[in-house]
Amino acid sequence: MADLLKKIGFGKDKDNAVDNAKESISAHKSTQEMYERTSKMNIPTIFDRYNAQQPQCTFGAQGICCQLCSHGPCRITTRAPAGICGATADVIAARNFLRLTAGGAAAYTHHLELVAKTLKAAAQGKTSFKIQDPGKLRAVAGALGLDTTKSTEELAVALADAVLAEIKKGADEPLLLVEKFAPKTRLEIWKKLGIIPGGTYAEVGDAMTKTLTSIDTDPVDLLLTTLRVGIATGYMGLVATITLQDILLGTPAPTTSSADLGIIDKDTVNIVAHGHIPLMATSVLKASQSPDMQKLAKEAGARDIKLLGSMCTGQELMQRSATSAKGFAGQTGNWINQEFLIATGAIDLVMMDLNCSTPALKTMADNFHTKVISVDKLVRMAGVTDHLDFTPEKADEQANQIVKMAIDAYRKRNNGKVHIPGYKSDVMAGFSVESCKAALGGSWNPLIDAIKAGSVKGIVAVVGCTTAKTKHDTVSVRLSRELIKRNMLVINAGCVSSATQIEGLMRPEAAEQAGEGLKAVCKSLGIPPCINYGSCVDIGRIGVAVTEIAAALGVDPSALPVAASAPEYLEQKAVADGAFAVAFGLLLHLSPVPPVTGAPLVAKVLTNDVESLTGGKVIVELDPVKAADAIEAHINTKRKALGLP
Amino acid sequence: MADLLKKIGFGKDKDNAVDNAKESISAHKSTQEMYERTSKMNIPTIFDRYNAQQPQCTFGAQGICCQLCSHGPCRITTRAPAGICGATADVIAARNFLRLTAGGAAAYTHHLELVAKTLKAAAQGKTSFKIQDPGKLRAVAGALGLDTTKSTEELAVALADAVLAEIKKGADEPLLLVEKFAPKTRLEIWKKLGIIPGGTYAEVGDAMTKTLTSIDTDPVDLLLTTLRVGIATGYMGLVATITLQDILLGTPAPTTSSADLGIIDKDTVNIVAHGHIPLMATSVLKASQSPDMQKLAKEAGARDIKLLGSMCTGQELMQRSATSAKGFAGQTGNWINQEFLIATGAIDLVMMDLNCSTPALKTMADNFHTKVISVDKLVRMAGVTDHLDFTPEKADEQANQIVKMAIDAYRKRNNGKVHIPGYKSDVMAGFSVESCKAALGGSWNPLIDAIKAGSVKGIVAVVGCTTAKTKHDTVSVRLSRELIKRNMLVINAGCVSSATQIEGLMRPEAAEQAGEGLKAVCKSLGIPPCINYGSCVDIGRIGVAVTEIAAALGVDPSALPVAASAPEYLEQKAVADGAFAVAFGLLLHLSPVPPVTGAPLVAKVLTNDVESLTGGKVIVELDPVKAADAIEAHINTKRKALGLP
Repeated sequence: MADLLKKIGFGKDKDNAVDNAKESISAHKSTQEMYERTSKMNIPTIFDRYNAQQPQCTFGAQGICCQLCSHGPCRITTRAPAGICGATADVIAARNFLRLTAGGAAAYTHHLELVAKTLKAAAQGKTSFKIQDPGKLRAVAGALGLDTTKSTEELAVALADAVLAEIKKGADEPLLLVEKFAPKTRLEIWKKLGIIPGGTYAEVGDAMTKTLTSIDTDPVDLLLTTLRVGIATGYMGLVATITLQDILLGTPAPTTSSADLGIIDKDTVNIVAHGHIPLMATSVLKASQSPDMQKLAKEAGARDIKLLGSMCTGQELMQRSATSAKGFAGQTGNWINQEFLIATGAIDLVMMDLNCSTPALKTMADNFHTKVISVDKLVRMAGVTDHLDFTPEKADEQANQIVKMAIDAYRKRNNGKVHIPGYKSDVMAGFSVESCKAALGGSWNPLIDAIKAGSVKGIVAVVGCTTAKTKHDTVSVRLSRELIKRNMLVINAGCVSSATQIEGLMRPEAAEQAGEGLKAVCKSLGIPPCINYGSCVDIGRIGVAVTEIAAALGVDPSALPVAASAPEYLEQKAVADGAFAVAFGLLLHLSPVPPVTGAPLVAKVLTNDVESLTGGKVIVELDPVKAADAIEAHINTKRKALGLP
Repeated sequence: MADLLKKIGFGKDKDNAVDNAKESISAHKSTQEMYERTSKMNIPTIFDRYNAQQPQCTFGAQGICCQLCSHGPCRITTRAPAGICGATADVIAARNFLRLTAGGAAAYTHHLELVAKTLKAAAQGKTSFKIQDPGKLRAVAGALGLDTTKSTEELAVALADAVLAEIKKGADEPLLLVEKFAPKTRLEIWKKLGIIPGGTYAEVGDAMTKTLTSIDTDPVDLLLTTLRVGIATGYMGLVATITLQDILLGTPAPTTSSADLGIIDKDTVNIVAHGHIPLMATSVLKASQSPDMQKLAKEAGARDIKLLGSMCTGQELMQRSATSAKGFAGQTGNWINQEFLIATGAIDLVMMDLNCSTPALKTMADNFHTKVISVDKLVRMAGVTDHLDFTPEKADEQANQIVKMAIDAYRKRNNGKVHIPGYKSDVMAGFSVESCKAALGGSWNPLIDAIKAGSVKGIVAVVGCTTAKTKHDTVSVRLSRELIKRNMLVINAGCVSSATQIEGLMRPEAAEQAGEGLKAVCKSLGIPPCINYGSCVDIGRIGVAVTEIAAALGVDPSALPVAASAPEYLEQKAVADGAFAVAFGLLLHLSPVPPVTGAPLVAKVLTNDVESLTGGKVIVELDPVKAADAIEAHINTKRKALGLP
């Protein structure tokens, strides 16, 4: 394995990659403090479970374990170079990888479907949600060829129906959104490769069919299909979702917020919105501010009711705290923080709305008074018996019920058991394609000029999850710091946003940590060097921005001094995002090691050959400084090709 | 593990289960002989790869290995009772199990979609396929509420469109086919459990979303979702597919055929139809009989062109060799036989049309002159460069091309290298719901009377795949023999059909091996005690038959003296079939051990608790005699409850 790891671009001294973080389990003081607390309380958490799982199976880690049929598990060794059916390491790894991508695409589609249905219900007056950005509705509907002479409501129904129809298209019916929104240069490449996707559920179905044992056993075709599912994810799960969410909930506009566990107030009823879909959370926020609910809270002895954010739902609310989420109380943290958040003892209710609600959340809640409920029809957890599956038509009623549950739980809270770490950071948020351009005076030109001049060397999307494998948030924070120091503007989204927020990198003052060129640009605009684009679906905004910048320059996205990094990727949605990035023509830095290292051809295609097809490729590097080196080298190459200094 | 195995109903001496087969690797003399040949030729085959994989990982085998996120692989041990996210053994096993089921459902849906599109093209006159069973078209269309005053062609388009629309329904739009075709008693149960499915692709999407790490972590909900996907599979992947195939290709009618490798003729051009979808194969069969192609073959020195069957496509053709597949040359064998078939050196071309074309097929073909091509857009294999993806509109042209390729390959054949084992068996085939009833004089009553009288104790569907784990076809053949000896009528479908065909159990003479009661019934009707229902999709016919018999008796299917067995289950489609059987209220015998034994709650729900919900349940038993004991006991219980002797 060591040889292969080197081959695909690993640092030689990978064991030292996170050497400086050895003293702790997390980049964040708040998490370190909370881990000390849970350890003293004898409650095991993720870091303990991580240790208990060591050493982990190297077959699975390398992607060469197949469990798809009852002949398995088959594992590739020198003695057994093929599974019982004859599948090689490459077939097994590529199949597993596509199946992970399909899972991510499916989950994004569920999110999009729910948002589209809510937009439709809003337009039909069947829910208290109201259309917040009719301008965006008109622009997008027009781009898709819908009749924009219709009223806002009629047009919203037509757009929602169009998106719902896209979801349900067959795999042989190319997506209209791809045709209309992808750069022409990309469309040509994708057509040539035969990877223009159809409806997302059909694409997921085809990916599942192909990954049955002995249907598609061509690793290269499986990897191309992974890109295809990635493109479907990009234009449906990401771009369509953020677009409809903006229309329904408002396009993010500049705002300030705060992050870290120190934002928790022990004198208020505390509800945590945890997950990825900000619909129920928006309703609960509104309900929490109603006189009726405030009265109930006060009767229970609380000063107020607060809606706190966790993971991506929190980011969505933060991004819209100037529009539909006024009064949002701030972001507590990301995936790894979920147990520690509850361990403060000050959380009364957690509402789980989609992925990344770990079983450990409930285990931790059982040590406190915290009520855990699910608010999406697909979210279920052993021991959680309250399901208020979000229904647009009943949202207000459901939200009131949730607030009441939280107040009931608050009554049972023992404030003697509460411990809230004293750390919090200010955050500048609300960046979007629109608000970024507005900050630049209405067009991308000032940014493009800065890039041309070299004061901003390039743009790097540092996005995705968090992992315990390389110490919580350590690689994402260090990489972001390293990049801004080298004058690369960083855009964060997903769990990485919480990481850089907590470490203060989303305050305008963080410009001081940037290189001279970037510092000057940030200072003149009054923005931080790490820009918050929001949740993981908001990665779609990066795609939109890059498309616009490429168009302004008259080049393909792959020609830009732009790169993407998922420095602590964890989930299947991140795998689907990554597939989109590579299809889109971007360099994608990945860490920890994806399960392909046991498959020489798959590793070679992803880290090398695919560049000749899409212009994108993967680099795997666990050391954040070396990752920054590789990203910078790539950006320099792109700059040179464009004739930039 | 041993304890758990016992708990879920294992025979204590499971190691002796296949003791009598120890001398060989297969139940079949032809396979044994061919394995000797490949061994002498130094070509590794499945049995060698099986040995090379020993010992296999017990974590995967028990279902307690999770590879869904980059924190993994996580494995459940006493030291680590949960994964890094907190997922327990039950969560991990249930999630993996649902994902397997979803894969199966997806593959069935692809098959159905292709058949529906071909039916539509036939009705529109865009292909040379012609509607073969307009009576069935009218009956089914009427049952679904379509306007049957339309012409055959218009009605076929309407039915095809209706089925295509069903496939694309959302998960929240209940399937019309379930509502119209499921027994009312079943519908009530499924409604109560909330498991009436919607469109199959959306259900696969939801299953994939739920099985993301940390979305659905309730093992019971995951198992209920497995049943839901099973029901979608039952009425779409199985019932709808066979129905449309019958309309398009003719409903099976009584016929005779032959099976085993001895049917191969070394003086003819030999094309093997290998897979599950009999569309291209039907076109190729027709093309092979054309004067042009016959002339070409003769010019190449061949006496004739033969289309041989392998796996389920072969079964489909055999079933219709009195209708659309006249001239079909017989069945070579099942999944495990694919390499040995090619190793005869007498196969000129293999066309792969869906699942179960193993990479080993190509590896073996590379030792001979055999041409391997794929004929479905989702089937790809490393090294296979000829893709003639079936397109109804081009089927004739594609079929001619394939026959020409086969003739070209024949020219390269070295008949000195040919070795064909001398074994073959006669087979009575062409059973379907309709032909069975016709044989009984037009209704199920004679069979029901025989069951009431006890001459036929019950009906057991012994269906599904084949496995090297318990010696090729050994458990399926022995179990079938054991059941008929005990007066249970056996219905076979899928790879098990090839197994019993080769062993002569589908000849009317096999009645001699049955118990006295069944023997008499078979003799009076002139039928064998093992009835061929065809391929694995034809398991749907068993569902239809059981539904009709239950209706005739005025009881729910779960009340009938009926059981199902997948005695050598291998593939994900078999898992989906199994989920349908349990949802349908049937006892399901499974062997080898499904990957759930490390998950106590999952094992308990499947083997016990689910019976109180659906009436169905799983028994796991590797010893065919003990499996027959358990099935007989179950059937006796059902007989007793019905007041039968």
